[in-house]
Amino acid sequence: MCQLLGMNCNIPTDILFSFEGFHRRGGLTDHHADGWGIAFFEQKGCRVFLDDKPSVESPVAELVRRYPIKSENVIAHIRKATQGKVNLANTHPFMREMWGQYWIFAHNGNLDNFQPAPGQYFRPVGTTDSEQAFCYLMERLRAKWAEPPELEALFAEVAALAAEIRASGVFNFMLSNGEVLFAHCSTHLHYIIRRSPFNTAHLVDDDVSVDFATVTTPRDQVAMIATQPLTDNEHWTALAPGELILFRDGAPLMTRKAD
Amino acid sequence: MCQLLGMNCNIPTDILFSFEGFHRRGGLTDHHADGWGIAFFEQKGCRVFLDDKPSVESPVAELVRRYPIKSENVIAHIRKATQGKVNLANTHPFMREMWGQYWIFAHNGNLDNFQPAPGQYFRPVGTTDSEQAFCYLMERLRAKWAEPPELEALFAEVAALAAEIRASGVFNFMLSNGEVLFAHCSTHLHYIIRRSPFNTAHLVDDDVSVDFATVTTPRDQVAMIATQPLTDNEHWTALAPGELILFRDGAPLMTRKAD
Repeated sequence: MCQLLGMNCNIPTDILFSFEGFHRRGGLTDHHADGWGIAFFEQKGCRVFLDDKPSVESPVAELVRRYPIKSENVIAHIRKATQGKVNLANTHPFMREMWGQYWIFAHNGNLDNFQPAPGQYFRPVGTTDSEQAFCYLMERLRAKWAEPPELEALFAEVAALAAEIRASGVFNFMLSNGEVLFAHCSTHLHYIIRRSPFNTAHLVDDDVSVDFATVTTPRDQVAMIATQPLTDNEHWTALAPGELILFRDGAPLMTRKAD
Repeated sequence: MCQLLGMNCNIPTDILFSFEGFHRRGGLTDHHADGWGIAFFEQKGCRVFLDDKPSVESPVAELVRRYPIKSENVIAHIRKATQGKVNLANTHPFMREMWGQYWIFAHNGNLDNFQPAPGQYFRPVGTTDSEQAFCYLMERLRAKWAEPPELEALFAEVAALAAEIRASGVFNFMLSNGEVLFAHCSTHLHYIIRRSPFNTAHLVDDDVSVDFATVTTPRDQVAMIATQPLTDNEHWTALAPGELILFRDGAPLMTRKAD
């Protein structure tokens, strides 16, 4: 299965420490060698780095490891191909524009026979079930609202669509518009909130530690979300199957569990 | 004014030599220090590298200079801000999905009072006249055709829209869907076709030469398009004001001059 990594913060933060462990899962400490990608929101703008090389040997990953991009919302993905060839068009995360905002999506799982009718507003470019699901989700939101709705209504609709789509298979995903980040668990997804007082964290995938107290201010708050915990000396919370969480400013703002 | 660079080829080709000269115009040999970007199509997929740092000191430009991405269609842009702040959301090239294809756009010039009504399908995220024009162009194409039209009809419509928009100011642009590349000249745009027999080219912006005969095969054909010629020992063709050219497989396929 693929690996997901997300970050949502109250001030722009770099993801270098977590990416250091995460990118090693792309071909070194785990078997996800079918490309990878990472999207950084910087206010309304977004940049997406994609590579169809394994992340441990990717020159683009090397750039991301060395260039501390400060972002409020990040979504990264390492791919183990289930549906669709290994090529750039099938590499997560995917991006679309809706309501004058960029939307970023990445998926871990596999959907069987999920083939919605072509949308009026959004269509897949590649051949993955993941991009199909993203376009379907966006299509339904855009068909319902021509302008951005209130956050509560948006959250309820994303929860309903996630429940509908996960009936077709495994559907762990992250979705962000640069203001909020949705994390949906179908099988495996964990999160941790880092806030003052900060401690030292140690990576699972590499013998690297960081003392967050030395690189933060007391009001910083950062939510990290990952398929599997990235550190071995902190307490990560597992999402329940069918649970959707909306993160804003580095903390869960809304939560809905499956009925 | 900004600087545009485009490439359209019949086989995937790297743009390292041309980018070597082009990126120096972002703050070194010319004054365009308000960010830059480059989009590479690889079949249907597309990756866009953006940076709001000047290209001569950008770590992302450093990556692009060292990583020979082979692409059939490339569009790059170095920004001299005229409208809109210097930030990521205002950095060219811009990307949208239409008809299940990614579309990439970059603009050199300035449009006065060009403020079309918000579109149903496409809206700007940032605050530039350029992204407004791109979204308007896409909106009109999508409103006219729900499915991709024949190339002749598409070319005629892009020519009509370009003429309409250039009534508001200077509108040099490049547009690509990964199969074809449109180049429209309002004031300054030049192109060259490189094909067998290949010669040695020498950059204007740096004392660097390349003998293309050593890095090509006899059937390679490459169209390079740039605001100003990038080499000083080859013959570049200037587009006429109001001229639109559609490039495919490394050569002009359709041309229309202003009436």
